[in-house]
Order: sequence, then structure tokens, then C-alpha cells
Amino acid sequence: MLKLILGNKAYSSWSMRGWLALKTSGLEFEELVVPLYDGGWDERREGDEFAPSSGKVPLLWHDDLVVWDSLAIIEYCADLTRRELFWPEDLGARAMARSMAAEMHSSFAALRRECPMNVRRDVPTPNLSRETIADINRILVLWAQARARHGSGGPFLFGAWSAADIMYAPVVTRFLTYSIPVPPFARQYMSDVLRHPHVAEWIDAAQDEPWVIEQYEGGQGTA
Amino acid sequence: MLKLILGNKAYSSWSMRGWLALKTSGLEFEELVVPLYDGGWDERREGDEFAPSSGKVPLLWHDDLVVWDSLAIIEYCADLTRRELFWPEDLGARAMARSMAAEMHSSFAALRRECPMNVRRDVPTPNLSRETIADINRILVLWAQARARHGSGGPFLFGAWSAADIMYAPVVTRFLTYSIPVPPFARQYMSDVLRHPHVAEWIDAAQDEPWVIEQYEGGQGTA
Repeated sequence: MLKLILGNKAYSSWSMRGWLALKTSGLEFEELVVPLYDGGWDERREGDEFAPSSGKVPLLWHDDLVVWDSLAIIEYCADLTRRELFWPEDLGARAMARSMAAEMHSSFAALRRECPMNVRRDVPTPNLSRETIADINRILVLWAQARARHGSGGPFLFGAWSAADIMYAPVVTRFLTYSIPVPPFARQYMSDVLRHPHVAEWIDAAQDEPWVIEQYEGGQGTA
Repeated sequence: MLKLILGNKAYSSWSMRGWLALKTSGLEFEELVVPLYDGGWDERREGDEFAPSSGKVPLLWHDDLVVWDSLAIIEYCADLTRRELFWPEDLGARAMARSMAAEMHSSFAALRRECPMNVRRDVPTPNLSRETIADINRILVLWAQARARHGSGGPFLFGAWSAADIMYAPVVTRFLTYSIPVPPFARQYMSDVLRHPHVAEWIDAAQDEPWVIEQYEGGQGTA
């Protein structure tokens, strides 16, 4: 029996990745949302700021076996099913997809800090630091390269839906939330990601969550 | 033809991981060391502080295909050879090994900042922040759990040498460099890692490098 422990769907970007991995696997799983909000904001309980580790979400239990960290959950789901559900079959495409997923996993700290995920929110573009703008530009270059080299078979980064899209899906919602100006190819990609049934299901579910974390609802010069 | 672009062997912990992945694969490869020191310290050129991305090391070229990021290089090498060279065969052990590797990949920022890798150095224990002590304790718990649950088949975290050891090998050298007090089981594990022929070869090669980065040679209250 697979059980996935998640944070708030509105805010927890790493949880979204773990959940998308389970949905992509097609395996049945039970989900347990543990709201991050518990009277005071405890930043160490969400992987997004300080990286996933003990006590953080998401956490996948498979009977008495536990997998923590979104990227490990992706690989675990690939092991349980088929690698081709998660990674491109072509070796070159797979190498790039794995590199992009790994870069998302360990980088873009400025973007993550300044533009926290909140799939319920939609605000004018805030004033962004140079570091965040550099993060955004880097992501757009990666998306463009993947689409140009390997994207001909479908609307996603490597054509078919892959782990790379899972890793960047929360970035898509951030770009939307903070009205980040993007070139047409990226707008198209973002719209295809948001229309993906699993992504749409996650965002829908987030609308009904009762929890509110003030830190993720205002600030940063946004309206 | 495989070509691996590396930073200084004395200092570049992410390069060490990429290089150990190639050695573990048994594939032939050419290595190109690009010294990080170029008149002034440019922290953005080493993955260790700001996470691997474009312009950073290590970088694996396979003909005209490029893989960046140490974890992606590990998976790429596993794809080229056999997964069992890198990850435990047992699903539970593999899940834990992948989780530990992923946690190393995105976490322990305090330890990495306060105790930069320098395999040529050996100093008394410096004054460590609470965050760094928490990082060290977390790593020791992970090592203990891996050894206790899955380590019976050999001296390494999951018995046989695996990607988890590759990811934590630079931590082993840090614990040694900064004389971090560790329990006996960890001392034994560290000594076995340091005796691993690939690790020993890397550390040997670092001794002869002519480059010195002042930032990694002093400071932090160490002698």
C-alpha cells in the first residue's frame, strides 16, 4: 500500500512534485495532507526553503518502507513501474531531462525565496532581485533548449510528459502567480502544463483548502 | 568518447562525486581539470555553494551530448552500464539510498558553507554553528540507519559501494579535515571510504595540484 504524506496543496511545491510522480505512475495511493500551518509558520517543515529531509514533506510510505525527497520518489515510482513513464527513451534526451531535474532540485534558491508557490494567487509582477531574474532566465533557456532539441513529439519539455515537467510544474504556477513576462513558446508550454489533468486536479484541490499561511499571501511588494 | 570537466581536486566536492561516478562505471574517460582559482575567487563557478548549473563543474561530455550535475551524471553512468553498480538491488535499500543521495544533493548548506572541502587540510575542530551541528547529526543518523538496516554485506552504507557512498564521500573528507568527533561506527565507515581505491586516488592527485584558494585554506576560527 502506497501512502503519500503531503503539505498544503496551495503552497507546498515539493509535495506537488511527489504527488505528480505518484499520479504519473498510475499506481493507487492514499494521500495524507499535513497542513504546514500549525499556529506559527515553521519553515523547516517544508522542503522548499531548506531542501527535503527528515520531518519534511513529501514522504512516501510503501508498506514499511519510506522514501523521502521528491526526486527519489520519482525514481522509486519509475522502479515500481517503467522508466519510460518518467524519463525519455532517447539517451540524449534522458541525459538532458535528468540534468534539468537535478538542477531544479538543487538550484533557483532566489526564485523559490522571492516567489513562493501559491496556486491560489495571481498578482502583478513584483520587483525582483537580480538573482531571481537570473534564475528565471536560466529556466527559460533550459525550457527553450529542451523544446527545441527534444520537444517535437508533444507539447511538453521532451515531447511526452516526463519527470522534467513534474520538477518544473511548480515553477509554471509561480510564473503565472507572479505574472512573470515570458516569451510565446514558454506561454504555450505553461498553458499545456496547466491543462495537464494531474496538474489541473492538484490546483483545483488547493482552492478548497482551509489553511492560510500569511507569509505566502502577501509581501514582497506585490499587490 | 567520455570527457569529464572538473574543478580543483582539493576543493571541488561536486567534481569529486562526478569523477567517482565515472570511475565506478568502469568506463574509460578523459578528465579535464579547470582550476576554480583564476586570480579571484568566483564562487559561482563551483557547484558546492550555489548548486550545479550552467558554467559549473562537473560537466560530462559524451560525444556531442552533455550531462551536468553530479546526480544526473550518476544516473547517466548507471544507464550506460548497470544500475546495480550504483544502486542496491533490494528495493527497500535502493529507496533509502536514493533518498539519502537526494538529501545530500539539496541539503546540508550550513556544513558545506562552514566546512568547505579541502582534502589537503587537517585542523582542530572549529567552532561550529548550531545549523552545522544539526547537519552533522542528521548525516550521522542517516549513516547509522543505512549501516544498521542494509550494511551487512560490506563496509559501505549499503554494504557494497554505491552511489550513496559517492554522494557522501566529500563529507567523509570534511569530517576528517575539521576533526569532527564521530562515533566508532562512523570512524570505521570513514576509514573504509578513505581506503577505497578511487577515493584514495582522488585525494592523492589533489596533493600535487598547484592551485591554492585562500578562502579554503584558513578562516572560520580554525588553526
